[in-house]
Amino acid sequence: MARIVMKFGGTSVANIERIRHAARHVKREVDAGHEVAVVVSAMSGKTNELVGWCTEAAPMHDAREYDAVVASGEQVTAGLMSIVLQEMGIQSRSYTGWQVPIHTDDSHGSARITGIDPENLDERLSDGWVPVVTGFQGISDKGRVTTLGRGGSDTSAVAVAAAVRADRCDIYTDVDGVYTTDPRIAPKAKRLERVSFEEMLEMASLGAKVLQTRSVELAMAQGVRLVVRSSFDDPDAPSAEGSEWGATGTLVCGEDEIVEKQIVSGVTLAKAEAKITLRRVKDRPGVAAAVFGPLADARIVVDMIVQNVSEDGGETDITFTIPDSEFDKALNVLKAAPGLEYDSISGSKGGAKISVVGVGMRSHAGVASSMFKALADKGINIQLITTSEIKTSVLIEEEYAELAVRALHTYYGLDKADG
Amino acid sequence: MARIVMKFGGTSVANIERIRHAARHVKREVDAGHEVAVVVSAMSGKTNELVGWCTEAAPMHDAREYDAVVASGEQVTAGLMSIVLQEMGIQSRSYTGWQVPIHTDDSHGSARITGIDPENLDERLSDGWVPVVTGFQGISDKGRVTTLGRGGSDTSAVAVAAAVRADRCDIYTDVDGVYTTDPRIAPKAKRLERVSFEEMLEMASLGAKVLQTRSVELAMAQGVRLVVRSSFDDPDAPSAEGSEWGATGTLVCGEDEIVEKQIVSGVTLAKAEAKITLRRVKDRPGVAAAVFGPLADARIVVDMIVQNVSEDGGETDITFTIPDSEFDKALNVLKAAPGLEYDSISGSKGGAKISVVGVGMRSHAGVASSMFKALADKGINIQLITTSEIKTSVLIEEEYAELAVRALHTYYGLDKADG
Repeated sequence: MARIVMKFGGTSVANIERIRHAARHVKREVDAGHEVAVVVSAMSGKTNELVGWCTEAAPMHDAREYDAVVASGEQVTAGLMSIVLQEMGIQSRSYTGWQVPIHTDDSHGSARITGIDPENLDERLSDGWVPVVTGFQGISDKGRVTTLGRGGSDTSAVAVAAAVRADRCDIYTDVDGVYTTDPRIAPKAKRLERVSFEEMLEMASLGAKVLQTRSVELAMAQGVRLVVRSSFDDPDAPSAEGSEWGATGTLVCGEDEIVEKQIVSGVTLAKAEAKITLRRVKDRPGVAAAVFGPLADARIVVDMIVQNVSEDGGETDITFTIPDSEFDKALNVLKAAPGLEYDSISGSKGGAKISVVGVGMRSHAGVASSMFKALADKGINIQLITTSEIKTSVLIEEEYAELAVRALHTYYGLDKADG
Repeated sequence: MARIVMKFGGTSVANIERIRHAARHVKREVDAGHEVAVVVSAMSGKTNELVGWCTEAAPMHDAREYDAVVASGEQVTAGLMSIVLQEMGIQSRSYTGWQVPIHTDDSHGSARITGIDPENLDERLSDGWVPVVTGFQGISDKGRVTTLGRGGSDTSAVAVAAAVRADRCDIYTDVDGVYTTDPRIAPKAKRLERVSFEEMLEMASLGAKVLQTRSVELAMAQGVRLVVRSSFDDPDAPSAEGSEWGATGTLVCGEDEIVEKQIVSGVTLAKAEAKITLRRVKDRPGVAAAVFGPLADARIVVDMIVQNVSEDGGETDITFTIPDSEFDKALNVLKAAPGLEYDSISGSKGGAKISVVGVGMRSHAGVASSMFKALADKGINIQLITTSEIKTSVLIEEEYAELAVRALHTYYGLDKADG
């Protein structure tokens, strides 16, 4: 017997029929003897409707009232899920964020969970009930309803799993797991059986939008094992052979659980990246702050940053990337920035960032150089390079993006055998 | 300066434009220096949508979860109303039932308010804020959200008004007051300036569906003065001359505030009433229970009841009315009722109940007989008569209903001067 938290996203609870389908997944686990808590998002489209009303009421609206309005979406789903579970003969009770309670700070609209009192849920679980908890929300010290920001339901699920010391947190979504790359680009992409928290973080922030980054960070910090799987699966399908969690899906876990560490686990792509280069910048303490401070003040998110070793003359080149949409704004901000001395500023839109990610890189030299060779073999020019412990990223021309992804996917042996 | 509770029903907050219009009514009172608390219903249609989902999830669903789902409707309106008020420069904060808190018993779906802690609202009001409270709901001792049943928002408003010792509770709806009769039947119907709680109760339960009966009972018990008025009025219209509440509308108040007591204040009509007569029933203790007990068990609501004085032989006739739709069911229930002895059972559908209501009847003899004469003058046959202290009702054939209403309306001097 295990204790499992099952989280269903908006498309998995889009209407009563979908909620009933999701409930059959819950029933399968209950029938198998597990203790189950459920976390739900709002029915897909509902959050947008509620946000739309707030904006229509006042373009700049009070975040406290926004939260009061928007949090109602999950409340509806939780009650409906409980009704459906009861109809299936499962004892169930819904819990809003304040009823659990899930404590948060008072950063309305993007609150952080500060703690969960597990008593109510623990009692229900021990009694064989299925508590259904609203994702995405909590309550502040001031007794006001808060929301965690978009995608926060994943984070709620992980936090609940940590609070009730669950053996696993299953994230049901509209894809059946985490893939080695985007199957729309590389049809030979294959589903990963397991991926480490660290790899997942690098992939999530790079555009593999299966799990919200915050939820993976929290899972890693709390040691909560995640399974990403599809709610569109047949809930009554027999368990996949040898799979602990009973079906397809990807286990996101600590590295210690991953026996055969791939050098490269995945290839990710982010398009529409613009680069800006400042030539012969005076290299003195504080120069990076002089460049990136004004950009941060203008709320421009900078991605890759490359600074060459300073030449003898105490001058250096700095290059960084930003979304294409911020290109003109960023140029203007830098041209107006005080105390910034350089020879020239230039740049261009239309880049693509390709990254290879894998915990095996740590113990395996030469991944970067092999990556450059694989791209050179296809005649693809590399404009920028950045590396981290388990990731190597390059910026290339956008038109080569898909070719590069497919080439690297094949090069690192990620293609499906039957693909 | 007064302290006012303003309640807006579903059609008055049907969309953001309507909410903004309602908020202008609030602003008018705030600008006049009053302390204002607002109580809101769900946007019209929303409660039906939520109820529909519950029924789709399971035809027989847990009332606790039904309440969790359905109570979300008012939560949305309260937040949106606060946003709109803030946009108008008014400090405002929304409150759900559990945030006030409004305590109720745990009769989910039809809970009764057991008490309201006024501290939160009092503090906001004293600080010049406008608290916006969700109608229709509260919280049970078990920490579960409860709803008061359909129309409960009026009751919430009256209870809030009593808790904060408001000078007045303004009920904004889609009509501009209480009329002497249904204007669709009698175009000469006129709006009452004032009507007593007692009259309002007789009129509400008889089909003048402006205010929910429970809310009037509570207002009478707590001495909360109500004003029924239209949210469709121009919020910026100058105050009606001599009107304390600043516009059109009807004040529902204690009899002591009504100087000129009308003998008859209104004429009401209920159609589709069926009557059933039991002839020569054995008249012994418990016979009424033997008749009406089985009907109550079958959840058939009985309206008028007439029992003639027993004849010498210890037998009597009993006649009562029920909705047409319950006619067949009621006959079957009585035929199967144990221990009930009578000679014959008969009845018919298609009756109409006409009532004249007025506190002046108490001190004025002969209202009943003058009513019968007025109907006889039009050739209308009376089938049944019941009377109470401030009301006389008759059952007539349905096809004469409108004629009877207009005749009585004219007879008692209720027609508009210019009508």
